[in-house]
Amino acid sequence: MNILEIIEKKRDNQELSKEEIEYFIKGYTSGEIADYQVSALIMAIYLNGMTKQETTDLTIAMAHSGEMLDLSVLNEVIVDKHSTGGVGDKVSLILLPLVASLGIPVAKMSGRGLGFTGGTVDKLESIPGYITGIDIPEFIKNVEKIGISMISQTLNLAPADKKIYSLRDSISCVESIPLIASSIMSKKIASGAQKIVLDVTCGSGAFMTTKENAEELAREMIEIGKLANKETVCVLTNMDEPLGYAIGNSLEVIEAINFLKGDMLEDVKEVVLELGAYMIKLAGKGNDIEDNKAQLLENIQNRKGYDKLIQLVENQGGDSSYTKDTDKFPKANYIEKVYSNQEGYIKSMDAKEIGKIVCDLGAGRIRKEDSIDNEVGIVLHKKVSEKVEKQEEVATIYANSKEKLEEAKKRLQEIIQIDENAVSKPKMVLEIIQ
Amino acid sequence: MNILEIIEKKRDNQELSKEEIEYFIKGYTSGEIADYQVSALIMAIYLNGMTKQETTDLTIAMAHSGEMLDLSVLNEVIVDKHSTGGVGDKVSLILLPLVASLGIPVAKMSGRGLGFTGGTVDKLESIPGYITGIDIPEFIKNVEKIGISMISQTLNLAPADKKIYSLRDSISCVESIPLIASSIMSKKIASGAQKIVLDVTCGSGAFMTTKENAEELAREMIEIGKLANKETVCVLTNMDEPLGYAIGNSLEVIEAINFLKGDMLEDVKEVVLELGAYMIKLAGKGNDIEDNKAQLLENIQNRKGYDKLIQLVENQGGDSSYTKDTDKFPKANYIEKVYSNQEGYIKSMDAKEIGKIVCDLGAGRIRKEDSIDNEVGIVLHKKVSEKVEKQEEVATIYANSKEKLEEAKKRLQEIIQIDENAVSKPKMVLEIIQ
Repeated sequence: MNILEIIEKKRDNQELSKEEIEYFIKGYTSGEIADYQVSALIMAIYLNGMTKQETTDLTIAMAHSGEMLDLSVLNEVIVDKHSTGGVGDKVSLILLPLVASLGIPVAKMSGRGLGFTGGTVDKLESIPGYITGIDIPEFIKNVEKIGISMISQTLNLAPADKKIYSLRDSISCVESIPLIASSIMSKKIASGAQKIVLDVTCGSGAFMTTKENAEELAREMIEIGKLANKETVCVLTNMDEPLGYAIGNSLEVIEAINFLKGDMLEDVKEVVLELGAYMIKLAGKGNDIEDNKAQLLENIQNRKGYDKLIQLVENQGGDSSYTKDTDKFPKANYIEKVYSNQEGYIKSMDAKEIGKIVCDLGAGRIRKEDSIDNEVGIVLHKKVSEKVEKQEEVATIYANSKEKLEEAKKRLQEIIQIDENAVSKPKMVLEIIQ
Repeated sequence: MNILEIIEKKRDNQELSKEEIEYFIKGYTSGEIADYQVSALIMAIYLNGMTKQETTDLTIAMAHSGEMLDLSVLNEVIVDKHSTGGVGDKVSLILLPLVASLGIPVAKMSGRGLGFTGGTVDKLESIPGYITGIDIPEFIKNVEKIGISMISQTLNLAPADKKIYSLRDSISCVESIPLIASSIMSKKIASGAQKIVLDVTCGSGAFMTTKENAEELAREMIEIGKLANKETVCVLTNMDEPLGYAIGNSLEVIEAINFLKGDMLEDVKEVVLELGAYMIKLAGKGNDIEDNKAQLLENIQNRKGYDKLIQLVENQGGDSSYTKDTDKFPKANYIEKVYSNQEGYIKSMDAKEIGKIVCDLGAGRIRKEDSIDNEVGIVLHKKVSEKVEKQEEVATIYANSKEKLEEAKKRLQEIIQIDENAVSKPKMVLEIIQ
């Protein structure tokens, strides 16, 4: 077996065997196979596609290219929850403590934000003292002790996926459904998930901009889950406008805390309940989705979800006085409102563009090594379909530089589109694929 | 403009502009664009193809990536002759002095052999004293003085082509007609050719194994020639069995000298006359192909072609006593005959396999830096379609090691296929494409 034969096979649109895929992943991880060879193979995969079996074999080979987290020591079914990325997506901050409050163990490794999408780890770190970088024995101990731990990826998970992802980025081969699917699923499998609930976002602020592409990606991941024996459910959600009102690290944490205290924004609620109901189902704790949603709602009303969040924060070194009194979070220096320039109905608020503004305010990273500003961001006051008067407040901008504030105001004004005709309220949960 | 957009365009099967192709070639030659990016682009080109205009733009960009030889100082139309490679191909050694003897200037840079195909430079260097590595002013002076010079590539011709060719070789992207065509034509254009006669070989010992592929390659090169304003004629020739009887450096030189002295082998004659007739035509010295062939034959009979070869050898420092008395060429230590093992007709003598045997005897190189043995090789005594008796001599092997001799005998015996039924004589010139 050699890499030339493997490239040739895929070039000629033939199916690669499990052994060939393993050979390529091992050789690339170790550096024996060169970047320029893999990039030719990746382009051939991009253009000729992969069968479900090949995609699954690639996923498993990438998952095994580095450390593998073994969660079986917990002696319970661990259900992972993952989102394909969005703007204002604070679902994990709300949902995971809520699910844990129902006695379902949560052992979650999250990522950091990159580009216009945020990351749960950055949001958690905006809580003073909260430590995300803890080692695996402590992580496991935390889950055993309080039923939940949320940390950053401290292990060397799926290094082959990292190498391939960065290569794809530099050869215009990012938008390939089998490659995206295997990239996501390899990290889930490496991080010990036994069952997986995926929030597959679609719309302007998501990786998949159309519902068709999101469906294709979802089906691909379901298939990988089946072949890899990791039951998977995909919830397709709308990401045309940001989720909830807040975008920015501490601003989103505050919104999440308020949600768990009972202040439930409609769109966030729809997504949280749907994903949570399937997590309960996959954990074997309830087959009826509506019953499951009721259980989740009950634990918001009785504040068990909120208490679990406080417990999580305290257990990981965070100062829970902030989570108890969100006014304590440091505020940005410049807080200014943006007003509507006409009367009408909010027609669109492009999630990607808003994500970019927030990133440029300092909340996100352009490169991995950039530092981030937890205070800055945007809080919307209106969402798509809502009525606005002329000169009504539509958003508040939180900035730490006058220049960036002015730039953000100008850009946001242009992005918020208002129509004189009524606009229908967008549905958040678009489809369940399982 | 950036390389990501260029890769994306070709990935999506769109036509690249001249500026985009120039940007990519310049950036790759200078090292600003990485191997792994070019290899993704090359795979996309392999799979999605290129238009004639793109192929021509690529050819010209590669030609201009290094030094360009300017032959216009010669004040005459310079017709280049090039073969796409074969086994036993001594055509240049015969044809170029012959054409020069008709007063048509020949300024020829040739390559060395690699793998199973031989190279004219190696053959010339088997003549003691012959210097192939001379500089351009002297090269030009030689042509002005005696009407011919044959040298090795001393200039840095089309370095982008060299880089891309070596990359293609390591990513299974060699067999792409537009890439092969632009590779050949870029070197021809860089080496100053104004008009080009191409010997497009096809068969087991050629790059193109089928006539269909050879035709496609020829048409592609004709089109590049048209768009690049370099009139080109392609002569498709048969390379299923070696050309002539001799394979090996000094053995082929001896055969070429004998040919110019009038001992014309039928298959070599057919190819030499056809290519030569078109060289005369392109040089503007005769429009009638049959007349041109007659002129060439005349200069064999009157030995003007032979005299021109002697003059060439002497002018480039070679010892013409060898070319005058070919018995002076040093002989290999082991000279042994191979006999037919049955009565019948020669059905096939796979050119590629014979090329490999001769290479393994020491006449060729596996890697560029290998040294070669001029004495070794094979002389066939029979060609396809000829009748043989049982135990009749079919070939002689020239070796410098007993072990290699035995190995070569064994392999050659297997390669020479004999059939009891009559086999028709293969045609050498298959088609003219212009």
